[in-house]
Parts: sequence; C-alpha cells; structure tokens
Amino acid sequence: MPLEPGRAVAELRELQELTGDGDGAQRVCWTDVWAQARAWMRGKLAALPVDVTVDEAGNQWATVAGESERAVLIGGHIDSVPNGGWLDGCLNILAGLEVLRRIAENGRPPVTVRLVDWADEEGARFGRSLFGSSACSGTLDPADLESLRDRDGVLLPDALAAHGVDLSRAKESGRHLATAAAYLELHIEQGPVLEDLDLPLGVVLGTVGVERHRIRFTGQSAHAGSTPMDRRRDAFGAAAKLGLEIREIAKRHGGVCTVGSCVTRPGIVTAVVGECEITLDQRHLDADVLARMLAAAKDAGERIAGEEKVEVDWERIWRIHPIHFDSALVELADDAIREVAGSSHRLPSGPLHDAAEVARAGVPTVMLFVQSLRGLSHTKLEDTKPEHLELSVRALDRLAAKTIAQVAAG
Amino acid sequence: MPLEPGRAVAELRELQELTGDGDGAQRVCWTDVWAQARAWMRGKLAALPVDVTVDEAGNQWATVAGESERAVLIGGHIDSVPNGGWLDGCLNILAGLEVLRRIAENGRPPVTVRLVDWADEEGARFGRSLFGSSACSGTLDPADLESLRDRDGVLLPDALAAHGVDLSRAKESGRHLATAAAYLELHIEQGPVLEDLDLPLGVVLGTVGVERHRIRFTGQSAHAGSTPMDRRRDAFGAAAKLGLEIREIAKRHGGVCTVGSCVTRPGIVTAVVGECEITLDQRHLDADVLARMLAAAKDAGERIAGEEKVEVDWERIWRIHPIHFDSALVELADDAIREVAGSSHRLPSGPLHDAAEVARAGVPTVMLFVQSLRGLSHTKLEDTKPEHLELSVRALDRLAAKTIAQVAAG
Repeated sequence: MPLEPGRAVAELRELQELTGDGDGAQRVCWTDVWAQARAWMRGKLAALPVDVTVDEAGNQWATVAGESERAVLIGGHIDSVPNGGWLDGCLNILAGLEVLRRIAENGRPPVTVRLVDWADEEGARFGRSLFGSSACSGTLDPADLESLRDRDGVLLPDALAAHGVDLSRAKESGRHLATAAAYLELHIEQGPVLEDLDLPLGVVLGTVGVERHRIRFTGQSAHAGSTPMDRRRDAFGAAAKLGLEIREIAKRHGGVCTVGSCVTRPGIVTAVVGECEITLDQRHLDADVLARMLAAAKDAGERIAGEEKVEVDWERIWRIHPIHFDSALVELADDAIREVAGSSHRLPSGPLHDAAEVARAGVPTVMLFVQSLRGLSHTKLEDTKPEHLELSVRALDRLAAKTIAQVAAG
Repeated sequence: MPLEPGRAVAELRELQELTGDGDGAQRVCWTDVWAQARAWMRGKLAALPVDVTVDEAGNQWATVAGESERAVLIGGHIDSVPNGGWLDGCLNILAGLEVLRRIAENGRPPVTVRLVDWADEEGARFGRSLFGSSACSGTLDPADLESLRDRDGVLLPDALAAHGVDLSRAKESGRHLATAAAYLELHIEQGPVLEDLDLPLGVVLGTVGVERHRIRFTGQSAHAGSTPMDRRRDAFGAAAKLGLEIREIAKRHGGVCTVGSCVTRPGIVTAVVGECEITLDQRHLDADVLARMLAAAKDAGERIAGEEKVEVDWERIWRIHPIHFDSALVELADDAIREVAGSSHRLPSGPLHDAAEVARAGVPTVMLFVQSLRGLSHTKLEDTKPEHLELSVRALDRLAAKTIAQVAAG
C-alpha cells in the first residue's frame, strides 16, 4: 500500500465531522467525545496488522512488531481544547496512521514502530497539560494532581477512573520507553514563522526554556487632582517602563518576553496607582541566554524602581529549562523536509509538546512543524493549506524511514 | 470676645472624639453620626446671637444679621468619608464658628454674615458629591439621583427623607444665594504643594477643569511562546507607551495627567495582551491648556496605535470646565495670608469643593488652603500642624473682615 497523504487529510476531516461542532473541536480529554475519537481511531487501526493497547496513564499505543524490539515511536494527541482547531495534536495521529499503513504493507520492519496517542496533552479540563507523556517520562508527581477539580467540582482521579486510569499507577506507563530508540512528532507550528518565510515545513530544534514571574511595583496611591507630577510614586508608570523594556531585552537576545497581565490598585480613575502587578513570561532555547534575559529584566526593574521611587518585588511562578532535540535526528529531519519540499528551516518551539517530555526521559527526539495560517491555534480558525498537510505526511514518512534505517544500523 | 484660634483646634478634637473611632472620622452624610455632629454644632451655635436654619437641601445655615441683608458666606461641610480625617470639611466649620463669635461680639456687622454647613459634600454613601451646594447653585438635577442606592439598597430619596429632606424640593435652597455678595472657604490642601514650599497657607485660584476618558487599545491576543516579537500587536505595549507619554504631556503643560486603571484581556501569563483598557484623568486650571493636553494625548494615542499596529478608541467618562475664583477676593486673601503668615502662595485646587458650585452660581468666591502633612487626606493619617491650623483660623478671620468691609463699601 503506497503512502496516500490525501487520505490522512480526508481522515482529519472525518474526525472533525465526528467530534467537532460549529465552535470547533470538542475532544477534551476524559470526556465521552474524546473516548469516541479514540474508538474511531481503534477502528482505523483494526484494518492494520498492529497490536493496540492502552497503558496505565491512558496513552494508546499501536505497535507494528519489527525484527528488533528496539522501537521508533511516532507520537501525537487526539485530545483538543474546547472549541479547538482541527489539526492541533491529531494531525500527527492521522499522519502516523498513514505512515504505519505504508510500513505494515512492506512486511516486517527491521525495528519495531509504534504510534502513541498521549492522554491529556492539553490539560484543558484540569489545568495540567502533558499528563500522559509526563507520566511516561517520569516527571509527573501524582500527588500534585490528586486534589485537582474541573469546573463542575469533579476530582481528577475520579475522572481518570471513569476511563480506566488509576492515577496512582500512571507512572508505570514509563516501561514503554525502555525500548524506545527514537521519538518523532509532527505538529502544526501554531505561530507565524514558517508562513512569514513562505515555507511549508521546518525542523524543531527543541522546546524553549521558560521563566515566569509575577512582578509587583509598590508606590503610593494619591489624589489624581492634588498630587503634582513630580511628587508621585506611580506604580503604573514603573510597570509601563518595564513592559516596554522587556520587549527590547527580547529583541536584543533573540527570544520572546511577554507582559500578559497588568493589575492596578486601587485601580480608579481619580487615583495615582499605588500598586501595580504584572506577569512576565520569558522564553529562549539557550539556557544561558534565558538566564541573561531574566537578569536583564531584573536589572531594568531595579533601575526603574529607583527612577520612579517605588519598590519592586519578584515572585517566580514557574520555570522550565530548555529541552534540545537530538542533533542526529535534526539532520535527518532536515534531509526529509528538503526531499519533499525543496528547502527547510530550523526553529525552536515556543509552546511545550509531548516531545519535550520524551526527550527529558533521554529518548532521542525530533519534531517537524508544518506551517500554520496566520499563526492561529486553539480556535476553530486554526488552519493549514491541504497541500502543506500532504507534504507534512510525506516528510514524516521520509523521516520515519530514515530513522528506522538508522536505528536498524545501530 | 477676641478671636481664639486655639479654641477652634480644641473643638476639632472634641468633634473627632465624639464622631470618630480608631479608624478615623465616621460622619458620613445622612447617618446618625452625621446628625449627631450637626446637633453638637447647633449646641455650639446656641451660645451665639445667631439664627440657625436648615434649608430644603439639608444645608445648615447660621446667620448673624447685619445692617444690610447683603451677605458674606463662610462655608464648609461637617460630613466626612468613612474612616476619614479629622480636618477635611469640618476645619472650616469650626474656624467659621470662631469667626462668627468674633463678629457677633463686636455688635451688629455692616453686612449679614452666614456660616453654611453644606450637606453631603463627600457623596460617600450614594456616590454623588457636592449635593447640598449643587442643589443650592442650581446645577443639580434631582432626576439623576432618584434611583441611586447605597450598598444596603437604601434609595437616596428615602435616606434624605429620614433627615427631613425632600429631594424634589432640594433646589429651592437656591434662594439663599440671592443675597450672597461673597463666599469664603477654608480647607486643608489635601496635596503636598504647600508642604514642599514650607508655607502654611495659600490662596486658591479656582478648581481645575477635568477631562476623564476610557481608552481602549485593541491588538491581537497571541501565544506568548510562538509569536515572534516583530509579529505582535501588543495592546499592553501601546497602553504602556501612552501611560508614559501623558506624564510628559502633563509636565509640558503644567497640569496633571493620571492613568489610574489598566485592565488587560485575556490577561493571562501565556498570551500577548489582545485588548488593554486604561483610564485617563487630565486636569488644568486653564480651559484652553486643558483642551491642548487632551488633544496632545489623542495625538499620542493615534501615533502609538500606528506604531503598535493596534486600534485605539476613546470614550469620555466625565468632564468639567475650570472654575476661576474672584480676582478681587484672591487679592484680599493674599493680603490676609501675608498679614498672618508673612508670605503667601497662589495655587489651583485639583479636587472639587463646594466653593466651585457657589462660584458657578455667580457669587464672588475664594478659598484658602492650609498645609496638609504628606499630602494625605481621606484617611485617619490626614493631619496638619496645630500652629498652622491656628494660623488658618486667623487668616480666615482677616479675610472675612476685609470682605465684609469691601461688601459694606459696595
């Protein structure tokens, strides 16, 4: 059976019809619609000579046994955010299905090939993303999740149990990585870089490191009418200065910095802002540069606090180190893209992906990005040209073939 | 009876004991504590040869009849905000009482002298300030107030009725201004200007004009990780730029400009701000300059919107034109201050006062400011040095004497 990339695109449309509505995809993990999508997928896999199992974390594995038990993994996620797009996560599931069809058709492969559908990548219902892949990689701590509830008050462990998953045993899924020799993931970019470059495909170098902080400037609330400009300790002025400064820091270091939230107190039209709290999100693929971006922002905060006669306090919300993908696989991916699309491009991923968890577990990993139109994702407006989707299936197939050959060669 | 400024300070302390608590003054208008303060004041007035009446708006008048029915008015307010200071409003009531004592002691004055305690200057309970003075000046529209409720759901007309005031008849109080020849008001500055100049007293030139707007910048919410800096349409960036620009506009024009509130949407750490709404409050004593400050802010908003590739919309929340006090009375006030304190200073008032309403009604008006410590007001920390309070009583007395003489001279 030759590769038919058009079939993957048709099946994406079929999944959209089955599990989406006028507002977009509705395959939120641990819901009936998600289970329906999973069952639909098992129906597709049933036509192939593959073994299908669900592990202790709810990840669904389809395995083409090879001459060696060493395995090349292809991974994605069929779950979506509410009102999501038609490609985020499931593109790789359907592209992977098409690749499995091509491989299974050609007889027993030299190494084992497995397609994994990670459980709850999005974390849309309980706020914890990368559930299945982090359980498998070992970075998940079940104790952190025990008391999470959805908006209806349902506990996470109860929702998982309804789908046959015992939270306390989820990390036992890690045994599946023992034989993994490589991990491949295709995803839509969810950003505008490839569209700007007019390129269909790119190789992902890794996922960026992230520093997230809450920054509070404390000045003095004062009457907007009776307080001269030179007597003010204006916390919003300080936040505004830092908000502009972090954009320059991002440009200077080749990363991204974002002030996503600003809260003013007392926050009334007739008072100088006494307290202003902003959030800062900084991302870079290079850990040292990320540290320099953070240091530069802290220096700027101190300088600005001095200029504005306010206090400044930093509180770390969250951080993650950069995760670099495997350099040999990056080369293979570059080759695969050039063979199907003529030219390639290397870029970091700003968002996290299941691939980052697999890489953290020490499995050589790489990702392919396919162009997103207007950079939109997590909305029904998310889209990619059909010809680019077909090219992405071809690129994943080429990459899988090269990787299988390399793993087989030892 | 010679003027005893120390007695006014002692009586301010007495009032504080009677109607304040550990959190500050509690004389919120249309409450029992306020009524108690009023009754205490009537007890003080009972010792003087004055006629005391309450008008249709709840303003309390104490009148020393003179040779002429033409009247010099001294006005203040005994009501406070909740947890208020011990001087805001009532300083003038007690200073005025001391001045009335001195005048009444000296026999029938050539013109009538009246001390008015305006009702509900603060608007603390129903959110409408300057109630009594605006009813008297005629600018109040009772229809605007009919459906106002306090936080317990009590309607404003019902609260007024409980204190003998019929909202529909409140404007009949305006007859009291028919004979008014001048209006004098002493108030704490509520700002830091006199303290910075190390001066106890100043003459108020008028109340500034105010322009209040809500400004909405609309960009595009986007993923903080996958959206390069040069592809963003960052609404917070635009708001930050304007927030800094309006400070320069204020300094350039000699006024004040304040961004008191900033709201970001979606307002989450992982997203570029798609929509940012700020409030702008601009004040200046000169109507033309105020208009130029507004035009400059609008120009800056347009320029910034272009730079940031966002949309900008302005919505006026409220405006009031500047109100200039009477130039002849300003001269008299300057003289009075110099006589008691050596040097004077002229300044505008950022906050509104009852004096502005009286001036709007065409009565020649002037105010005296006495220094506030640290510019604090509407808090129990509000304070003024006792020696400055005594000087302020002397200055009001001198100003009253000069004004009476001038009005008597026709």
